[in-house]
Amino acid sequence: MAGSTFGEIYRVTTWGESHGPALGCVIDGCPAGLTLNEDLIQPYLDRRKPGTSALTTARSEADRVKILSGVFEGETTGTPISLMIENTSQISKDYGNLADTFRPGHADYGFYSKYGIRDYRGGGRSSGRETAARVAAGAIAALLLEHYGIKLRAYTTALGYVSLPEAYADSLSLEEIAAASANAACMPDMELAEKAAACVAAAREERDSLGGVVECRIEGVPAGIGEPVFDKLDAMLGQALFSIGAVKAVEIGDGIKAASSKGSENNDCMRMKDGRVSFETNHAGGILGGISNGNTIVARAYFKPTPSIYQPQDTVNEKGEDVSLTIAGRHDPVVVPRAVVVVEAMCAITVLDLHLRNRNSRL
Amino acid sequence: MAGSTFGEIYRVTTWGESHGPALGCVIDGCPAGLTLNEDLIQPYLDRRKPGTSALTTARSEADRVKILSGVFEGETTGTPISLMIENTSQISKDYGNLADTFRPGHADYGFYSKYGIRDYRGGGRSSGRETAARVAAGAIAALLLEHYGIKLRAYTTALGYVSLPEAYADSLSLEEIAAASANAACMPDMELAEKAAACVAAAREERDSLGGVVECRIEGVPAGIGEPVFDKLDAMLGQALFSIGAVKAVEIGDGIKAASSKGSENNDCMRMKDGRVSFETNHAGGILGGISNGNTIVARAYFKPTPSIYQPQDTVNEKGEDVSLTIAGRHDPVVVPRAVVVVEAMCAITVLDLHLRNRNSRL
Amino acid sequence: MAGSTFGEIYRVTTWGESHGPALGCVIDGCPAGLTLNEDLIQPYLDRRKPGTSALTTARSEADRVKILSGVFEGETTGTPISLMIENTSQISKDYGNLADTFRPGHADYGFYSKYGIRDYRGGGRSSGRETAARVAAGAIAALLLEHYGIKLRAYTTALGYVSLPEAYADSLSLEEIAAASANAACMPDMELAEKAAACVAAAREERDSLGGVVECRIEGVPAGIGEPVFDKLDAMLGQALFSIGAVKAVEIGDGIKAASSKGSENNDCMRMKDGRVSFETNHAGGILGGISNGNTIVARAYFKPTPSIYQPQDTVNEKGEDVSLTIAGRHDPVVVPRAVVVVEAMCAITVLDLHLRNRNSRL
Amino acid sequence: MAGSTFGEIYRVTTWGESHGPALGCVIDGCPAGLTLNEDLIQPYLDRRKPGTSALTTARSEADRVKILSGVFEGETTGTPISLMIENTSQISKDYGNLADTFRPGHADYGFYSKYGIRDYRGGGRSSGRETAARVAAGAIAALLLEHYGIKLRAYTTALGYVSLPEAYADSLSLEEIAAASANAACMPDMELAEKAAACVAAAREERDSLGGVVECRIEGVPAGIGEPVFDKLDAMLGQALFSIGAVKAVEIGDGIKAASSKGSENNDCMRMKDGRVSFETNHAGGILGGISNGNTIVARAYFKPTPSIYQPQDTVNEKGEDVSLTIAGRHDPVVVPRAVVVVEAMCAITVLDLHLRNRNSRL
Repeated sequence: MAGSTFGEIYRVTTWGESHGPALGCVIDGCPAGLTLNEDLIQPYLDRRKPGTSALTTARSEADRVKILSGVFEGETTGTPISLMIENTSQISKDYGNLADTFRPGHADYGFYSKYGIRDYRGGGRSSGRETAARVAAGAIAALLLEHYGIKLRAYTTALGYVSLPEAYADSLSLEEIAAASANAACMPDMELAEKAAACVAAAREERDSLGGVVECRIEGVPAGIGEPVFDKLDAMLGQALFSIGAVKAVEIGDGIKAASSKGSENNDCMRMKDGRVSFETNHAGGILGGISNGNTIVARAYFKPTPSIYQPQDTVNEKGEDVSLTIAGRHDPVVVPRAVVVVEAMCAITVLDLHLRNRNSRL
Repeated sequence: MAGSTFGEIYRVTTWGESHGPALGCVIDGCPAGLTLNEDLIQPYLDRRKPGTSALTTARSEADRVKILSGVFEGETTGTPISLMIENTSQISKDYGNLADTFRPGHADYGFYSKYGIRDYRGGGRSSGRETAARVAAGAIAALLLEHYGIKLRAYTTALGYVSLPEAYADSLSLEEIAAASANAACMPDMELAEKAAACVAAAREERDSLGGVVECRIEGVPAGIGEPVFDKLDAMLGQALFSIGAVKAVEIGDGIKAASSKGSENNDCMRMKDGRVSFETNHAGGILGGISNGNTIVARAYFKPTPSIYQPQDTVNEKGEDVSLTIAGRHDPVVVPRAVVVVEAMCAITVLDLHLRNRNSRL
Repeated sequence: MAGSTFGEIYRVTTWGESHGPALGCVIDGCPAGLTLNEDLIQPYLDRRKPGTSALTTARSEADRVKILSGVFEGETTGTPISLMIENTSQISKDYGNLADTFRPGHADYGFYSKYGIRDYRGGGRSSGRETAARVAAGAIAALLLEHYGIKLRAYTTALGYVSLPEAYADSLSLEEIAAASANAACMPDMELAEKAAACVAAAREERDSLGGVVECRIEGVPAGIGEPVFDKLDAMLGQALFSIGAVKAVEIGDGIKAASSKGSENNDCMRMKDGRVSFETNHAGGILGGISNGNTIVARAYFKPTPSIYQPQDTVNEKGEDVSLTIAGRHDPVVVPRAVVVVEAMCAITVLDLHLRNRNSRL
Repeated sequence: MAGSTFGEIYRVTTWGESHGPALGCVIDGCPAGLTLNEDLIQPYLDRRKPGTSALTTARSEADRVKILSGVFEGETTGTPISLMIENTSQISKDYGNLADTFRPGHADYGFYSKYGIRDYRGGGRSSGRETAARVAAGAIAALLLEHYGIKLRAYTTALGYVSLPEAYADSLSLEEIAAASANAACMPDMELAEKAAACVAAAREERDSLGGVVECRIEGVPAGIGEPVFDKLDAMLGQALFSIGAVKAVEIGDGIKAASSKGSENNDCMRMKDGRVSFETNHAGGILGGISNGNTIVARAYFKPTPSIYQPQDTVNEKGEDVSLTIAGRHDPVVVPRAVVVVEAMCAITVLDLHLRNRNSRL
């Protein structure tokens, strides 16, 4: 059943496989009057681009976005915005036993069980390429959020065995984080970013792969965003982040740590400051009872290691036979650096949608 | 905007505040032909009941469910099932400064910012009482799942500082887990359950509170459940579990640990066993690429400590004044034991809904 | 699959059968801050009450509405409003061969084919009683619309063979219509109302039934309401009105007549008047391209005759046998007078929902 | 707010303006395993093509559909199907005072009031061109319906002042109707079709325009399709047909005539025939209580005359001035012949979606 749409008011529907002629999305519900053109979207897609570092594959994917509808004379018209990204590198190749073998750690077997069909070309719809459409939709969401005074930034907090110190980013502005994470690891600390790169390089040497953690901070969200009881802000962020392939855990604020804290440690006390409610700490990550409290929103997504590794693995094939599979081809040894902008995009879409939904909360 | 409905096919809408005359839910989309009566739902509600142990408050809430529609001659008719639970203990009382003060760690300030209105009676809609309606809807979902050969069970894996050993439940059947967790902590190990109870008692002594972790295991889910790309099984579980108040993190399978594993460690290899695909490990928690793979589904929700503590706390009031608040009344020092069945209910609704959605995946 | 919910922002879910303990609805998405109590809803339900004239049955249905949630200290809180109406006249009776025979003109056979179950008590969910819940939800919608400067009124334009002259209501204000239609036929012309009543009485004599037409006029709707391309204002009115049992045709403005007009006759020319756009005619019924144009909205619903007649009819039963059926019991010889407020309620819900949806059309 | 999506399971989202680079749709929820390629869709689009008769404009629109995703090796994969039709005749031209004047009978003023933006190029999103995407989605729906044994056909029953005799099509098979309506009027009677063409030619001479009526017959729909109480089969057909620009009335079965019939005339009696329930008449148009009864479904859409006429008309402009407007350019004097396949497409999508939704009605 249809599951390719996210959002109630800013409604994004993505389409496309990694090896078809194109992929894209339709954004229905973007308010009229936003200045928009391809150049405003492209930088987000460029942040997702592979081949920009030793951490990612050598594929060259241009990922040029085209606006097909919904914009007239440089402004959104309120009608659906159709975005298309052509797939330029669909090299026909020999898939060998990949065509009928289920790769461990991949969605292959699930897709086949579900649809009775095997699109073996690069993972089809479960490919990371699908997220390019999300990034394009997220770029427009971020432009809208900026209009409402909301800014956000995602970055790597852990890559393989290398992590930022806890609460590292608390003292940085989003601009400082953005500047400091302009490296291949997207980690806002140059020294750790280099260590992380070395850690990934070592895993690649071993024909293995690694995971990591992406954090997103969202500033300027007014108190009151999130719809009880099922479409809470954290619930929708949960769906949004888990909908990114490879995410196996999501935390808000202190997250897991909160479960072993005392109430007296975990509650964020309030004081008035410059005539506004201010929180003395932010254990809650800006969300209480599913509603924003005006504090910075902090969400974290944990990515598993890339399942495509260059070692022989035990698996089965369509015929129901035990086989050994050794994957060839080009695969990122870690998806995290490229997933950073995907996390940011999904957070942008989520917060924007709930912000627009909030407009009818009172007379 | 409306956010009180969950599910696309098995669609649950909850309503009601903790201190109104009643609360309940409407289930639209329950297939016709299921044997149903109040006695089949009540045991689930009883598992949520407070006052059954030293770990919970002494309030007595009868929580008797009534079926108002959708059942005829003991069978569901396919039309909406309306369930109502009357609030029997709405003692009128003096709320004192609670009526205009925002409790730290609570949704009060967010609700007030959102709706411009303060329902100070026991948290209103953000009260844990709202989950009684979810439990009733989850009970019916569990009955339907059983019909499809799917069983599930939630239980406590950590309470305050006391945790089950890692992978403790892997060797137990759901029946064994259910039997072993028939204690106040809902922890499937009597010795640890007692330690946990002591841990909570100590926190209560200190006028403080604790959190904990609930795990749910779901067996018998066929491969192929979950709708790419946004309504993936893990994404919907993410929304479902984060929609429970006090949940600050959600994990699937190895969860956070996966982020620091290697691909060669994290991939679950496959072998044929008795003519069926079988996995040698279950790091993925039964979900790959958002689709079930036939393995046991393992999800975990991390609960923060109860925000209502009996110590003075700094906060602000509606007038924008700094105040000190000391909460009185009856509050559980930890919500986890009562939340176990809520986690189970949300998992049941989620899996059932995606199972029904999957029926149209192929011709 | 779930189909008991209408509206995206003001979301109404109805539940309940004619012969269960109660029926009602949940309204999710009602903005906070509306003054609300049972006395503000009850007058709408009273307009639907049977037994108030010779045109309707002699059943006495109290139809007292209770607010179970969503209102605190006389104001809506923004949380779901649960409304319940207890069924007071569920007399257990002998259904005779009705219990397994499909009544001609009724939904019996369709329901049985769909759900495999027969709820023979008074039509179950397809009973007109279900509309009581819609009327309650529509009453609240009308209160909200009034807050936005929008008023509406439905009334009978034809009953059996007696019709109002064409464009009769064009020269009347909504208040005049309301006053003039305070008769058993709900027809805003006392003389025609009496003729209509006589017409129905004659049909009842013949053990037969009649149909009729209900028109609703909505004033004060600003230009710009309606969501292209599928959720247009007329499209949503179409769904809303056809969702009322017994409606077999819906018209907007000139409706059917437009199909045999010329463009030069059908276009409504515009002129500026007191600084505002004004239309010289209203063939369009206030809707162009699915969007309101600021003119009065005029919608019409055509009701078929009540299918329950007291004559023997050829039909079949569950066993697949040809049988003759003679219906006993109490049935209105025409549903129109009681359906007037149902039409008004559905129009109110539709316009309100699209009005709220329109708030995010531009930055 | 987003309104460009129709359907719950077979979910169609259209995008694109008449004068942008392209238009299209995304179909999410098409079951896997359907044989599909462009050649199976194109014939439906060709039926909508202008320039094929004296009744339509001389524009040449190739309307070639491209499948961008969701099909692999000639079969649907279950993932979103993206269809694109490039706009080949976007001639840049001088719009003169059209650019800031609101055309009578058009959506111009409503769109401007809603979005605050004027896309004056050919009506933008309210242009008939948008329906090309619906036709493409409807073609795939029709292929799926055929798989389920359901066939449908739309045709003209009235064009201007020329109508088919009542119940004309009742004695014809869908194949006969299709064959007989292969004329410029799409009217299944060659003589009347010629009269209708002459009628339209006369209106064109007078610089005027005409309307008409399109009927769709759907055969093979099993009893039980349609979701009470709001998503009834007739309710969804109502939304679907009113969502087509220029439709001002919709009828099911006898429609308007039913309102002045007696119950004894309007009820369709049932008899067993060859072991199946059979109806002796079809006043209900195959739908009772919003659920199909197994009889042929008959729906009718009434189209107003094309608002673009070549006579001077009174109207206003953006500046709020009274002006006289004389429209130039190419416009069909009647939309009906081209709208026939649009009606068929919307009926196909509606019935398919409800057919798929019905799968979970019982255990």
